[in-house]
Amino acid sequence: MDDESPALVSVVMGSKSDLPVMQDAEDILKKFSIPYEIQIVSAHRTPQGMIKFAEKCQNRGIKVIIAAAGGAAHLPGMIASVTICPVIGVPIHSQNSIQGWDSVLSILQMPRGVPVATVALNGATNAGVLAAQILACDSDSVRTKLEEYKKELQEHVAKQNANFKK
Amino acid sequence: MDDESPALVSVVMGSKSDLPVMQDAEDILKKFSIPYEIQIVSAHRTPQGMIKFAEKCQNRGIKVIIAAAGGAAHLPGMIASVTICPVIGVPIHSQNSIQGWDSVLSILQMPRGVPVATVALNGATNAGVLAAQILACDSDSVRTKLEEYKKELQEHVAKQNANFKK
Amino acid sequence: MDDESPALVSVVMGSKSDLPVMQDAEDILKKFSIPYEIQIVSAHRTPQGMIKFAEKCQNRGIKVIIAAAGGAAHLPGMIASVTICPVIGVPIHSQNSIQGWDSVLSILQMPRGVPVATVALNGATNAGVLAAQILACDSDSVRTKLEEYKKELQEHVAKQNANFKK
Amino acid sequence: MDDESPALVSVVMGSKSDLPVMQDAEDILKKFSIPYEIQIVSAHRTPQGMIKFAEKCQNRGIKVIIAAAGGAAHLPGMIASVTICPVIGVPIHSQNSIQGWDSVLSILQMPRGVPVATVALNGATNAGVLAAQILACDSDSVRTKLEEYKKELQEHVAKQNANFKK
Amino acid sequence: MDDESPALVSVVMGSKSDLPVMQDAEDILKKFSIPYEIQIVSAHRTPQGMIKFAEKCQNRGIKVIIAAAGGAAHLPGMIASVTICPVIGVPIHSQNSIQGWDSVLSILQMPRGVPVATVALNGATNAGVLAAQILACDSDSVRTKLEEYKKELQEHVAKQNANFKK
Amino acid sequence: MDDESPALVSVVMGSKSDLPVMQDAEDILKKFSIPYEIQIVSAHRTPQGMIKFAEKCQNRGIKVIIAAAGGAAHLPGMIASVTICPVIGVPIHSQNSIQGWDSVLSILQMPRGVPVATVALNGATNAGVLAAQILACDSDSVRTKLEEYKKELQEHVAKQNANFKK
Amino acid sequence: MDDESPALVSVVMGSKSDLPVMQDAEDILKKFSIPYEIQIVSAHRTPQGMIKFAEKCQNRGIKVIIAAAGGAAHLPGMIASVTICPVIGVPIHSQNSIQGWDSVLSILQMPRGVPVATVALNGATNAGVLAAQILACDSDSVRTKLEEYKKELQEHVAKQNANFKK
Amino acid sequence: MDDESPALVSVVMGSKSDLPVMQDAEDILKKFSIPYEIQIVSAHRTPQGMIKFAEKCQNRGIKVIIAAAGGAAHLPGMIASVTICPVIGVPIHSQNSIQGWDSVLSILQMPRGVPVATVALNGATNAGVLAAQILACDSDSVRTKLEEYKKELQEHVAKQNANFKK
Repeated sequence: MDDESPALVSVVMGSKSDLPVMQDAEDILKKFSIPYEIQIVSAHRTPQGMIKFAEKCQNRGIKVIIAAAGGAAHLPGMIASVTICPVIGVPIHSQNSIQGWDSVLSILQMPRGVPVATVALNGATNAGVLAAQILACDSDSVRTKLEEYKKELQEHVAKQNANFKK
Repeated sequence: MDDESPALVSVVMGSKSDLPVMQDAEDILKKFSIPYEIQIVSAHRTPQGMIKFAEKCQNRGIKVIIAAAGGAAHLPGMIASVTICPVIGVPIHSQNSIQGWDSVLSILQMPRGVPVATVALNGATNAGVLAAQILACDSDSVRTKLEEYKKELQEHVAKQNANFKK
Repeated sequence: MDDESPALVSVVMGSKSDLPVMQDAEDILKKFSIPYEIQIVSAHRTPQGMIKFAEKCQNRGIKVIIAAAGGAAHLPGMIASVTICPVIGVPIHSQNSIQGWDSVLSILQMPRGVPVATVALNGATNAGVLAAQILACDSDSVRTKLEEYKKELQEHVAKQNANFKK
Repeated sequence: MDDESPALVSVVMGSKSDLPVMQDAEDILKKFSIPYEIQIVSAHRTPQGMIKFAEKCQNRGIKVIIAAAGGAAHLPGMIASVTICPVIGVPIHSQNSIQGWDSVLSILQMPRGVPVATVALNGATNAGVLAAQILACDSDSVRTKLEEYKKELQEHVAKQNANFKK
Repeated sequence: MDDESPALVSVVMGSKSDLPVMQDAEDILKKFSIPYEIQIVSAHRTPQGMIKFAEKCQNRGIKVIIAAAGGAAHLPGMIASVTICPVIGVPIHSQNSIQGWDSVLSILQMPRGVPVATVALNGATNAGVLAAQILACDSDSVRTKLEEYKKELQEHVAKQNANFKK
Repeated sequence: MDDESPALVSVVMGSKSDLPVMQDAEDILKKFSIPYEIQIVSAHRTPQGMIKFAEKCQNRGIKVIIAAAGGAAHLPGMIASVTICPVIGVPIHSQNSIQGWDSVLSILQMPRGVPVATVALNGATNAGVLAAQILACDSDSVRTKLEEYKKELQEHVAKQNANFKK
Repeated sequence: MDDESPALVSVVMGSKSDLPVMQDAEDILKKFSIPYEIQIVSAHRTPQGMIKFAEKCQNRGIKVIIAAAGGAAHLPGMIASVTICPVIGVPIHSQNSIQGWDSVLSILQMPRGVPVATVALNGATNAGVLAAQILACDSDSVRTKLEEYKKELQEHVAKQNANFKK
Repeated sequence: MDDESPALVSVVMGSKSDLPVMQDAEDILKKFSIPYEIQIVSAHRTPQGMIKFAEKCQNRGIKVIIAAAGGAAHLPGMIASVTICPVIGVPIHSQNSIQGWDSVLSILQMPRGVPVATVALNGATNAGVLAAQILACDSDSVRTKLEEYKKELQEHVAKQNANFKK
């Protein structure tokens, strides 16, 4: 989605293995026509690169950062320590994670002053929706799409119930 | 803070006993001069009232909702189910909570389509900061204050180190 | 089972994916000839619909509600916040649940005044049996069937032991 | 409350040390004018006595049993194994319990066929309310009191908010 | 093994599904030539039968009871509440168990006065060895076999190391 | 109790700070007139001494070892690795333990072939009772005392109930 | 200890509130006459400063880094991501930590390629001892002191036992 | 690798089943050309042998010990209790482990005075890297290899990103 308009949302993840989960965030951003970029930024393998990435986000016009990581998941919190952009953290249930508890706790339990907006384990869809909700503060078109999305969720239940009773 | 400008942030909590924790959110919003309102909205004791509250937020000009609850903490998620405003959830380590695990999990683990931006257990300060970060997308003055706040955090470390070495 | 007599038990679940588990509740209700209805009611996708559902249950003659949900499982507790019918909560070990802990805690740990009668993780059979036990307070025929069911459980052990020793 | 009418609810607990918590159940039953009895029945110290207690409950006119225990909390489940009365289990956070996890899990996780209606850790108030909800299936007066109680819960929030804003 | 000498060890389990695990206990008892019996005794489906079983054990010459169960695992503790025979508890990671935590805690956390000698999750082999260790207090032949078994364990490591280095 | 007859039970603990808990085991052994010895044996500070202690136990006439430790609690398992005496493990909720989980798991989860008879967290009384139950296999006088003790437990409930109803 | 010889060990912590725990590390380093420095380095409040600190450690002659943090404890892992010095991580049970689990998991569960040598919760003494063990690879004097320290640990047990038996 | 130069690192594990995980440590040591030895040393099946192994390590020229174990994982801590060599502990998620929690806690939570440098669950690669970092204090060639390894980690991210954007 790097093609036309400059990205408003930057989606980063600690490892390529997080991509299958994070494509749910891409799907939502595409659905809502929100320009985004996506790449690997590793807190532990490219720490200086991560700092630079975070320092430049705001000036590049990024409004929201979605950061995903698993295990001792430091990426979301470290980005949040550098930038004042809102950072949405997605805990990944990665292969060596202890049932996801390490991912959740090391993203959620940030100290006073440096929040990460944490979503559910593997909650990439919700990271995308939350990014849209933040952008909707300032964009009528995103707001309209969010309202339609809420209706879709509702109608999906109605359809399921219709099939159910057959 | 209901006095002058209309509230941009609505702070709600499930019980009066959550107030001592939630005053940290108030302190941040005051510090950043963000107009806010604060009240008890109980998912379990006033469910219809909660739905109405959530339905009206956007039209009243509320940009961000901070919702705090403990135990089987349904308030943040239920508000998020009604509105498209971003909802920040604060898990409270309340008296009957099982070490806060119930509060954290019942706020964080929202299903696909309905995010809650969860902060740390008792993380009311960070809820305030995150609300400010969201509003800063659209407000230069809040952005400036956030940048100053980041510097304060930094300087605080320097001061502590200065005292340390004495 | 919507055919003849009006439903006494309403079985609801947050998502169609809960159905394979919840059919165990249906099986028990059928076995005990208890009229029931079954449908999807989503706390997070149809919040207003859920409230209406809960408001009308008692007047429609529903005596017991069985509500199943996984993850941040708000459905049982939110229904219980609206109605005075006994609500039996079934925590579902759904796909994105953290080993079921989120489901269990967000159903079980209800605040003072609003109980949910929680059964074991995926305990749909027991939800059906508990509904029958509640209805048996007022129904000799259900009571008789429960007594027979207890004997069946007992005899099943005897049969297993008989095979065992061969 | 053993004085006038025969008890409809039997409140039992595994140890005298559970009494301070269980008085919340008594308070609710008194408030709703539901005749009850209360005593210690220990699964582990008086196993045969517990079996006899459970065998006789139904014939004595007991409609609902509330059973509380902590640690390896077998009392609610063992009573439920004997009787077809609905059994409400109250996990107690007793002195030697591991944060209440043992109490919760050994009451909640009952096998197929033998439900215990589990309430929150130390949730004695809710055990009382749930007992009332079960009795209300068959009693207009209890139903009316439950409806009043729901209003009280609601009004309590309104009062707290009134004080709040001063 | 019910053939020749009367059983010294009674192996019981809550459900037939526990048998594949419990055969490890049988294997050890056979290996040590300890007469044993094995059967299903369900705390929740045959409570009175379980009490009778436990009451008679000592008079039948049973010296040690091995009891296995999963989930809300009451069988070992309830048997221990009736008899003064040492009871070895084997927590089973059964299908509906929450990762075995429920099984472990509801067997281990017995109240003051009523011990269960708990072994590891699915630790049926060790239940057999522990039974042998108890019987060895009073039997030279079992003691000798235990000493040989310890040597086997040791030699097995040596053999593995020999293969390892090839 | 080192005075008259040689000790049958050896009570060891990893640290002097475990003594307040372990005195409950002493109390039971005294009550049952079982000769015992008590001392500190540290797996981590005196590893070779611990091995020697364990090697000599059986020849000194020790029939049962009670070993208590907290945190990474290796003492019970390491003693069990050396001797064929039954080893009863008491997990201690020591100051630096993580809520006792480390103590419980590092004692309970022994590998195949080397059991530790684990009792509840801080369950020193039950360690004493279990030791008595093991010795009772071979001692009529201990068996009689255990039967009396069971009656005491039962009568204690009756007394509490008598006071209760006043 | 910044006075004479240049520091070989750098002790850093995320917050001044970690100091009471970390003084145990200081005590050990002093006891072993190992030159050290101590200061606050906050991953979240001074991220760029932390990176610079870590980049320079090796050239300044630092051989081992001890890093302590609580909650979402990123400091040890982030320093390890920058330097090839061994980093010893001390999880702190800080005020807002969830029983220390967040601190432990976010330090321990580092991804492939970037180890942190994690010690027990609040295990500052052991961090000091481990630093000494690493330095002892290359220092006869530290090795001698470690051997004396092991003897002290052993003798402490002997002394406690002597007092015990009085 | 026992062929040419004497081993500097000794890799031991409690069971042959730990080998597939521990080969990651071998791979790193080979990659860094660090002479090592590898074998099974079982705390519970060969306790005296383990003590001897640990007593001799230092004199044999071993600089670092890597010890892996699962369940009640006593091997790393027991070796650390005997030797002053740094011991790196690798918690193994073995077949009977409770999700790895037992392995982690029984290695990590060592008492004051006896550290084990614990790495992540199944973190054998990191054990190898940490051993190299410790040896690098005293070896320019290992230091150089560690610096190259850090660059490889970094370049791997760059390569993944290059492929990513195609």
